[in-house]
Amino acid sequence: QNSLLSATGTTIFTVMSALALEHGAINLGQGFPDYDGPEDVIEAAAAALRDGRNQYPPLTGVPELRQAVAAHNRRFYGIEADPASEVVVTSGATEAITACLMAVLNPGDECVLIEPLYDTYLPVVKLLGAVPKLVRLSPPDWALPRAELAAAFGPRTKAILLNTPMNPTGKVFTTAELAFLAELIRRHDCYAICDEVYEHLTFDGWRHIPLMTLPGMRERCMRIGSAGKTFSLTGWKVGYITCDRSLAGNVAKAHQNLTFTTAPNLQRGVAVGLMKEDAYFAGLSAQLQAKRDRLARGLAAIGFGVLPTQGSYFITTDVRPLGFNGDDVAFCRTITEEAKVTAIPVTAFYASAEAPSHYARFAFCKGEAVLDEALERLRAWA
Amino acid sequence: QNSLLSATGTTIFTVMSALALEHGAINLGQGFPDYDGPEDVIEAAAAALRDGRNQYPPLTGVPELRQAVAAHNRRFYGIEADPASEVVVTSGATEAITACLMAVLNPGDECVLIEPLYDTYLPVVKLLGAVPKLVRLSPPDWALPRAELAAAFGPRTKAILLNTPMNPTGKVFTTAELAFLAELIRRHDCYAICDEVYEHLTFDGWRHIPLMTLPGMRERCMRIGSAGKTFSLTGWKVGYITCDRSLAGNVAKAHQNLTFTTAPNLQRGVAVGLMKEDAYFAGLSAQLQAKRDRLARGLAAIGFGVLPTQGSYFITTDVRPLGFNGDDVAFCRTITEEAKVTAIPVTAFYASAEAPSHYARFAFCKGEAVLDEALERLRAWA
Ligand SMILES: CSCCC(=O)C(=O)O
Ligand SMILES: CSCCC(=O)C(=O)O
Repeated sequence: QNSLLSATGTTIFTVMSALALEHGAINLGQGFPDYDGPEDVIEAAAAALRDGRNQYPPLTGVPELRQAVAAHNRRFYGIEADPASEVVVTSGATEAITACLMAVLNPGDECVLIEPLYDTYLPVVKLLGAVPKLVRLSPPDWALPRAELAAAFGPRTKAILLNTPMNPTGKVFTTAELAFLAELIRRHDCYAICDEVYEHLTFDGWRHIPLMTLPGMRERCMRIGSAGKTFSLTGWKVGYITCDRSLAGNVAKAHQNLTFTTAPNLQRGVAVGLMKEDAYFAGLSAQLQAKRDRLARGLAAIGFGVLPTQGSYFITTDVRPLGFNGDDVAFCRTITEEAKVTAIPVTAFYASAEAPSHYARFAFCKGEAVLDEALERLRAWA
Repeated sequence: QNSLLSATGTTIFTVMSALALEHGAINLGQGFPDYDGPEDVIEAAAAALRDGRNQYPPLTGVPELRQAVAAHNRRFYGIEADPASEVVVTSGATEAITACLMAVLNPGDECVLIEPLYDTYLPVVKLLGAVPKLVRLSPPDWALPRAELAAAFGPRTKAILLNTPMNPTGKVFTTAELAFLAELIRRHDCYAICDEVYEHLTFDGWRHIPLMTLPGMRERCMRIGSAGKTFSLTGWKVGYITCDRSLAGNVAKAHQNLTFTTAPNLQRGVAVGLMKEDAYFAGLSAQLQAKRDRLARGLAAIGFGVLPTQGSYFITTDVRPLGFNGDDVAFCRTITEEAKVTAIPVTAFYASAEAPSHYARFAFCKGEAVLDEALERLRAWA
């Protein structure tokens, strides 16, 4: 069997969700809402099952969704992209990330990854025979270590994978940071895979800026969005890649080898979503911000060190004040078993064992009553 | 960019479907029905959008579908599989094939492939850094060349990918052929990826036999089925893998890196489908057999050499009687442009240029009126 996969454990998200279920814990681990997506989007997907378009849609997506992705890019970021040749719909952002890596990396190529990182990035880079170059952001501010980042780029660098707004840190990359990255990418003549699934989940006036909008980046970036996060429908697994036509050919061929295409009724539902008025997107971030504030305030009152969250579904907490230092896994297991609340240990987002091990990630994409009950349980336990 | 993908053309299915559209041709190329799937399955999927299960389902699939897959295996083949640990649901059979290859192959491992072959098999094996060993079936009978097959296995063989019922040949492998294969697999201690998406589309009393049911094969086979073909819903992209628990771990981890999970409402619809009574499955093959007969008779009357089809959606035809020898691509383009009927050149299913080049594949999964009209157009043209 494949030795790389054999050596990998089951993903932390499945492990902790199973443990939560076993102990009847409130699951603030895996990042999914406990509320449903917009009714019009769901009804559009249901209606689309009934008009005889249940066979293979085009490889790159149904025209309605490709057009909606292009319009969404124009409306929010001023990005012009041809829906016929510069948009590829995938079966979720996970497939999109794998397809983009597959499209550009050759065996032996180097790919810069930023830690802490989502748990499919590293195995996929390795499975493709490419060489990961890891650069680490440090808590509590997660600032970009510019010298180290510059040193990670070299003559064999083919791509960088950038996640902003970032999971698990909640960091939104600044224009200055993006400009520094763009300069490196131009200088080393390489590509960027931009995982921007939390693009609409930013708070306190922070705005998501796609790396693609910076000078020289239009032809180098593969920008990834996801219906799961933008419409609170994480199970639908509809993602979309926007990239230059010079890249879209290989991206589409990678997609062909991974899933070939994506259910047309869900694509058509998502197209309705992306055409919603601005108020929907503003409302989504306002709702999430209120949830973040509720959970952050409550956790701080219990004694957690609460790191700032500028975007995403997640709050990172320092658990040393709770008496756990050096074992975030033990902390997350303990609160699952004893407090009946589940979080994700942040070491799971690091490739090596030498990682900061006193942080736990809590998801706040839950109803207020659930957040309050989780806080009450943690308070009673602490 | 990735050189292997850059060197590959757009898939023949997309190319010919686009050409069909451009010329207003009846598309008997890409294999998809022009009729809809069962209403109860579609209604179940629509209803399942509305009861609040739109977030990430379990990585390996919703329990209802894993149980239905296990029950289907037992009912039709006597295969016992644990739904909790031996079934993995994927976003279509394409993903399933890629996940199974990824689960077992290491770079440098050899994988036996049988030509003619579906067009994602070869690139995926190569992208994983493995070495394809091609063995060719020869028309018109597509018999297994036993000595060559035995010679393709060696100390570095890790897996064989077997497609039965087979696309594009319509061949259903016999028990004797499967026994020969099983002996090779046992002797060389390797795995089999079994693409069995046409399992219910067999004709004239031919029955599909999963390789997994042969002695010693239970632990070595990853058996792949697909809702697309079994329920005439090719766009849904719901596939399922049945394999020993010793393999399912790596298969699930590969799936995690490819798509993570699959839309729960479609999974629940497919679960309803797999629980349908025997009459549904018998009726499906009877309907397809009648379509096959209609198209085969008509093509023969026009002068095509019609090769026997024991299963699948496809008829292979010899186009030499129509005056085309050595250029099946020209033939398929010509009939698309002039007769307004599209077929797929069979050379597209061969890795090398030295392939039989006087065969065209016609899909018969279409309504009777469409088949009749296509025949009428071909008759007028010929
Ligand atoms: C795809 S499971 C993980 C969901 C998620 O984005 C997260 O919890 O980090
Ligand atoms: C996934 S597109 C090809 C459909 C098919 O199975 C075929 O036409 O061979």
